[in-house]
Amino acid sequence: MIEFTAIGFAKTAYKDISDMPIQGAGIANNLAQIVINEELQAGLQDLAEFSHIYVIFHLHKMGQSALTVIPFLDTKPHGIFATRSPKRPNPIGLSIAEIDHIEDNIIFVKDIDLLDGTPILDIKPYIQAFDNIKHTKDGWYEQGMDPKTTRSDDRFK
Amino acid sequence: MIEFTAIGFAKTAYKDISDMPIQGAGIANNLAQIVINEELQAGLQDLAEFSHIYVIFHLHKMGQSALTVIPFLDTKPHGIFATRSPKRPNPIGLSIAEIDHIEDNIIFVKDIDLLDGTPILDIKPYIQAFDNIKHTKDGWYEQGMDPKTTRSDDRFK
Repeated sequence: MIEFTAIGFAKTAYKDISDMPIQGAGIANNLAQIVINEELQAGLQDLAEFSHIYVIFHLHKMGQSALTVIPFLDTKPHGIFATRSPKRPNPIGLSIAEIDHIEDNIIFVKDIDLLDGTPILDIKPYIQAFDNIKHTKDGWYEQGMDPKTTRSDDRFK
Repeated sequence: MIEFTAIGFAKTAYKDISDMPIQGAGIANNLAQIVINEELQAGLQDLAEFSHIYVIFHLHKMGQSALTVIPFLDTKPHGIFATRSPKRPNPIGLSIAEIDHIEDNIIFVKDIDLLDGTPILDIKPYIQAFDNIKHTKDGWYEQGMDPKTTRSDDRFK
């Protein structure tokens, strides 16, 4: 058993696991908040100099996990580790968000696909030299659907 | 308390937390292994069609966390959430690795900055549409050191 404690939580417009955007890419101009626990505020020093962050979070509303799933952006089943679907053996989510600004212990972000109240596990800066991989093979996703227009449904409830 | 169980572990050439590469970008041609628990092998279906994965892992050798640190690639302190340093409130690591091939329950990867025996929490495919952020501000890192030539030392022991 590996134990973590939330470092904060998300305040977003999404109250229900259905009809949500698929990844940050599906959201236009909603400002959401990542509220970091006040005692950890010093950990945010200099973060506002970065434009994008990784948000690692607990998919706290997930029920049973599954080893193969039909992801939102395809019609065929794939192994869970070949998808970003939430029904994972460890319900850990990963999204990239653009920082709008930071006030005290609150990171205001431009786009995030998190349910309101989602426990946050970690925040890391997105760094070109590590994270911008220019040439990749994207597997089944290359024939998949558009994350900008596809929304979630209740399949992972 | 949020509890997870390792889905597998890393087999790498790095037996000690000092003198390791900084992120996957620092490694040339070492083939490392991500050994997934056999009962989860079905979750790897179709993953070999992707070229790159996110590996989310437990920084299991970290001691006390710190809210500000001097990262390996700079000489000044920054908030922990503005760095990728391991002394995080939740010791969760995130690295991108290139898949060489997959055999049964073992993902052979070309580059990974993980200590041998590191517990793996999750594997997700790297997907251009979500993860390739072309224009970012990289904060202190823009004046930082080269991850290809910088190695870790014992500051986070």
